Amino acid sequence: MYRGFESELLVPLWTEIGDLMPAHPRSRAVPHLWRWEKLRELAAQAGEIVPVGRGGERRAIALANPALGGRPFATPTLWAAIQYLMPGEDAPEHRHTQHAFRFVVEGEGVWTVVGRDPVAMRRGDFLPQAGWNMHAHHNATSQPMAWIDGLDIPFQYTSESQFFEFGRDEISDAERITPDRSRSERLWGHPGLRPVAATTDAPGTPLLAYRWEHTDRALTDQLALEEEGFGGTVEPGHAAVRFTDPSNGTDVLPTIRAEVHRVVRGAETAPVRETGSSVYQVFDGSGTVTVGDTSWSVTRGDLFVVPSWQPLSVRSEAGSTDSDSGALDLFRFSDSPIFEALRLNRHHVEGTTRS
Amino acid sequence: MYRGFESELLVPLWTEIGDLMPAHPRSRAVPHLWRWEKLRELAAQAGEIVPVGRGGERRAIALANPALGGRPFATPTLWAAIQYLMPGEDAPEHRHTQHAFRFVVEGEGVWTVVGRDPVAMRRGDFLPQAGWNMHAHHNATSQPMAWIDGLDIPFQYTSESQFFEFGRDEISDAERITPDRSRSERLWGHPGLRPVAATTDAPGTPLLAYRWEHTDRALTDQLALEEEGFGGTVEPGHAAVRFTDPSNGTDVLPTIRAEVHRVVRGAETAPVRETGSSVYQVFDGSGTVTVGDTSWSVTRGDLFVVPSWQPLSVRSEAGSTDSDSGALDLFRFSDSPIFEALRLNRHHVEGTTRS
Amino acid sequence: MYRGFESELLVPLWTEIGDLMPAHPRSRAVPHLWRWEKLRELAAQAGEIVPVGRGGERRAIALANPALGGRPFATPTLWAAIQYLMPGEDAPEHRHTQHAFRFVVEGEGVWTVVGRDPVAMRRGDFLPQAGWNMHAHHNATSQPMAWIDGLDIPFQYTSESQFFEFGRDEISDAERITPDRSRSERLWGHPGLRPVAATTDAPGTPLLAYRWEHTDRALTDQLALEEEGFGGTVEPGHAAVRFTDPSNGTDVLPTIRAEVHRVVRGAETAPVRETGSSVYQVFDGSGTVTVGDTSWSVTRGDLFVVPSWQPLSVRSEAGSTDSDSGALDLFRFSDSPIFEALRLNRHHVEGTTRS
Amino acid sequence: MYRGFESELLVPLWTEIGDLMPAHPRSRAVPHLWRWEKLRELAAQAGEIVPVGRGGERRAIALANPALGGRPFATPTLWAAIQYLMPGEDAPEHRHTQHAFRFVVEGEGVWTVVGRDPVAMRRGDFLPQAGWNMHAHHNATSQPMAWIDGLDIPFQYTSESQFFEFGRDEISDAERITPDRSRSERLWGHPGLRPVAATTDAPGTPLLAYRWEHTDRALTDQLALEEEGFGGTVEPGHAAVRFTDPSNGTDVLPTIRAEVHRVVRGAETAPVRETGSSVYQVFDGSGTVTVGDTSWSVTRGDLFVVPSWQPLSVRSEAGSTDSDSGALDLFRFSDSPIFEALRLNRHHVEGTTRS
Repeated sequence: MYRGFESELLVPLWTEIGDLMPAHPRSRAVPHLWRWEKLRELAAQAGEIVPVGRGGERRAIALANPALGGRPFATPTLWAAIQYLMPGEDAPEHRHTQHAFRFVVEGEGVWTVVGRDPVAMRRGDFLPQAGWNMHAHHNATSQPMAWIDGLDIPFQYTSESQFFEFGRDEISDAERITPDRSRSERLWGHPGLRPVAATTDAPGTPLLAYRWEHTDRALTDQLALEEEGFGGTVEPGHAAVRFTDPSNGTDVLPTIRAEVHRVVRGAETAPVRETGSSVYQVFDGSGTVTVGDTSWSVTRGDLFVVPSWQPLSVRSEAGSTDSDSGALDLFRFSDSPIFEALRLNRHHVEGTTRS
Repeated sequence: MYRGFESELLVPLWTEIGDLMPAHPRSRAVPHLWRWEKLRELAAQAGEIVPVGRGGERRAIALANPALGGRPFATPTLWAAIQYLMPGEDAPEHRHTQHAFRFVVEGEGVWTVVGRDPVAMRRGDFLPQAGWNMHAHHNATSQPMAWIDGLDIPFQYTSESQFFEFGRDEISDAERITPDRSRSERLWGHPGLRPVAATTDAPGTPLLAYRWEHTDRALTDQLALEEEGFGGTVEPGHAAVRFTDPSNGTDVLPTIRAEVHRVVRGAETAPVRETGSSVYQVFDGSGTVTVGDTSWSVTRGDLFVVPSWQPLSVRSEAGSTDSDSGALDLFRFSDSPIFEALRLNRHHVEGTTRS
Repeated sequence: MYRGFESELLVPLWTEIGDLMPAHPRSRAVPHLWRWEKLRELAAQAGEIVPVGRGGERRAIALANPALGGRPFATPTLWAAIQYLMPGEDAPEHRHTQHAFRFVVEGEGVWTVVGRDPVAMRRGDFLPQAGWNMHAHHNATSQPMAWIDGLDIPFQYTSESQFFEFGRDEISDAERITPDRSRSERLWGHPGLRPVAATTDAPGTPLLAYRWEHTDRALTDQLALEEEGFGGTVEPGHAAVRFTDPSNGTDVLPTIRAEVHRVVRGAETAPVRETGSSVYQVFDGSGTVTVGDTSWSVTRGDLFVVPSWQPLSVRSEAGSTDSDSGALDLFRFSDSPIFEALRLNRHHVEGTTRS
Repeated sequence: MYRGFESELLVPLWTEIGDLMPAHPRSRAVPHLWRWEKLRELAAQAGEIVPVGRGGERRAIALANPALGGRPFATPTLWAAIQYLMPGEDAPEHRHTQHAFRFVVEGEGVWTVVGRDPVAMRRGDFLPQAGWNMHAHHNATSQPMAWIDGLDIPFQYTSESQFFEFGRDEISDAERITPDRSRSERLWGHPGLRPVAATTDAPGTPLLAYRWEHTDRALTDQLALEEEGFGGTVEPGHAAVRFTDPSNGTDVLPTIRAEVHRVVRGAETAPVRETGSSVYQVFDGSGTVTVGDTSWSVTRGDLFVVPSWQPLSVRSEAGSTDSDSGALDLFRFSDSPIFEALRLNRHHVEGTTRS
């Protein structure tokens, strides 16, 4: 009978059910940490050796989760890569249905040109770009620059929904000018204000840059409100903001959630499990991160992944090599909007009734 | 037969259809202008004579459209009043289902305490407060202060949906302190950023103040973008922003839309008709306003109403008594969200294909 | 000062607040009952005397709430009328933004032609027609026929959002044919099934007839389920179904909710208060209805209004003149969707925690 | 450098971009056909040999796409299996987040008990069951029965969102009774009617059975309307209905769309490409199916898969072994709701402007 199954391209449920239908998500991915120092070093080597141009499109080097067969998938749904651009280099224009963002942990001087709108990139900035927008990069300085790209490439790869198109080979001179604020920020970057003339049919946020000064101020405000007795934080000593589409208040991209979390020195977060996976990058400070049974000491720039339903806890503490007394700031992105849209999300905070 | 109708409390359609079912809205309200100077003078008189306290609740004096039978209704759906508070006075706490806002055309020094969160009021600020939030006012200065209240009192009066409750007779000392930013602004006033811990089930915006500095900058940006060739304005020389709920991008209140329009000196807006009515206050500059067959020269503080489906056009020009060279800034509020929610809204721009 | 107010068209809040901002809705309307027998008699008189044609448009005679100044308003938001069509008569085609429906308490033989789709009308049928659809009526039989029209005329009159257009003076011969089911029912009248090719952008339901056989069966099923111990009813002995738009599950019209309630002989419903008003018609059975302080014995065809926030309770019992042993069936329509869309709805069931 | 990448678990984009970011979806899955006769024969063998019980849970045998590495995945997101139950057998109760349905191509006599509500299964019936509802099966007859199960197992497996729980080992005697209609149908199976008392917070449809008599009538109606000149079909000779949640009109399950298509004898459908994949089963009739470069002659019960963005066209024609003159009826399920929720869906009809 089983030979009959095989020849007819059939597989019985009863031999597979334990793997396919576990009591809770048991991720094929594993927790893993990549050191920023090492990443940047390899990216700089690539900067010397590998040109950027049409075909390869980007000098991006992706995190490959050790348990995902050598594929460039940080988690089963998320792509995370370091991208590196040499002085004066351009990365050519293209567009794709994959939703994308950039996050800058150090350096400045690159502009991303989205829909012909040049967007400056500086430390702490979050720069989303919803699917099917033409975009290119341009390094206007005399220094190389590195940053993090996040995309839903693995999700669209496994669900098979991706389209791609080349754009112009060269951006225009007008797009090489370097305004302090992009046009998108001038239209959409005012708190609670909507341009009456704007239409917002396309998926994803019309705001192309979320600047660190605003993020930092929001986190500082939350912690001060907590101190004054008014709440506002996720838990004591733990502030968090989510980047949202100002036109509708939802996640900044249809498939990707992005947040910054600040944990004050000495505080430890309650372990949280969630449906779906996350990638974190340490933006500032240092501390200890525990994912499932694994713990790491982390410092600026380090990246780690949290597989689906694995508990994550973070402690903020002085690192061995630094002397700062500040908080631990973590940039996070996840695939949560996918599960919320499909009513599949679950969230559990251990040791509390919080959910 | 008609006597039978009358005795049985019946009315035939055929005698009433012209009034009840016109080809397009023919408002019972008429266009009308109130001069700010006169309003403030009468409010100041009331400040001397009429105390503020429990029962009367507020020293507010409402615009009564001349065609609405002496009722305090600026339009069939909207209430607009000047409110006046003497130095050191408090207006007692209460709450109601009527959605409300304050807009400040001059002065500063009053705090509105919404849900125990003190919110400073200054020229140009827009301060919404969704229904059923406890609120009080407190004049912390040695000067009287006047501002504009807008509510949906007539709408809730005719649709019979209003509830009301008294709050505390006195606010606490802690609520008399005068922070520069309210707690609501510290949580929700950062562009595109949502506090992860916040829940937003209640109707209406969680942001209690929209500051003039942001509004002004957004309008300035739109006009600069237009000048640079990128659009962003409603029409040439006419910028406009809408106040929105940052948690979902919709109108700031479920029944009230609020916007600021800036018309550059010399520009004239195309006549627009809309389902539903609006109240405008001149925030700055001067010019000529035409509503249907009526025209007025307007200057700072003046208020006027635009009844349903009457065409409105605005020209920005130097006033007889001023020498400023700036734009005409108009604050506007309307009942548009009601009609959009019920799929009854129509909008027509004369002489163009814009709609 | 008060003279100053008057001459400047101003009204102070402090003299009006009790009326404008009551603790809860205190309707200007009063509970009232109209006897079907009397209505039909007067409608039949009108049938003899008043022609139907362009201008008057419909031979409809509206309930005028005794406390609403002689206007043809059953409640501040709702219109309810008896319409009467003589054998062979047509009511000419027109359209309007007012949302409308027909409900048939007795007789058959009239077709309403909506968007050139002829819809048969029979006892127990509910026939909605969303705003801005062309429609006409045609009596294909040798008998006069009467039915009930419900519209949001008062709501659109006070909010001033109404548009109206004449259609053709005559419907075509093809529209005079009399299919058992309308085209709308053949496309949309299959439970849980959507035509893949259909688009549903317009407001309101695409289904033009809700037949009594389905309504009756659904009510019967609910009561049987309750009897079997599985719930499904509103409360013991009280079943209720709501007519909904099959394309999205919401109320059948953007401004009007329509339901049928069945109360088994001997049962009494808990008093319920709601924001907004309702009109009821007894479809079958008899009993006692209590609205606020008023009680009536009611029987088939009788109509009564429930003003906003007045408690309603119904007892099903044998009438003085009938011998049936069945349930009391009540058709109800209300303005609830308006308040739900605007987040103004409240609902209170007395003596229970049900809400 | 590449060795450095490898040791640091990094993969460059430039070597992978062709695979990861193609110009349009190039599915790893291939078109494939499974013959019903063969499936049923192997399932019957399993009925003799493999018991049904706790642990294995179901006697289900899944289609394994030949290009998906031997995994029981019909497509990258969809599971399709034949399930087989011997006379008197029970499949034990459990629940899981995977959304599921059953479709019956032949036979009758099994009840699926969902949330303790027994649901009869007969030829042509579609029986959805949203995630996290307890369910069991019970064969009440003296005949074995086979049917098709569809689930989103592969999607939840790759996105890692699945939870699972055992229920009771035995259903109660009350659940073995065999009503003609389930309780869900008695509450929710009336066209356009919503039980007023029902709450519908859970994802997925509350209606547990969509009976063939309704589906067949809806398809017949569409073709008759087309014949009468009124449209209603997808294209000439091609009718289609979608199973929807009566509480909100959306797809019956958050991740799965289900439809029945009828193609009249002699008609051929225009080739359609869509983001995402589908599985079809021939319910009745015969014809030729073309997916990409592959064509098959199909007849009752045959199953085939359409990978993402592969064009599908269907011709209805008399089969070699049958003499019926009827239409080709195809049951289809797909993952379209995933892509629509995430704004990733695209749809292209070749040779037309239809989209």
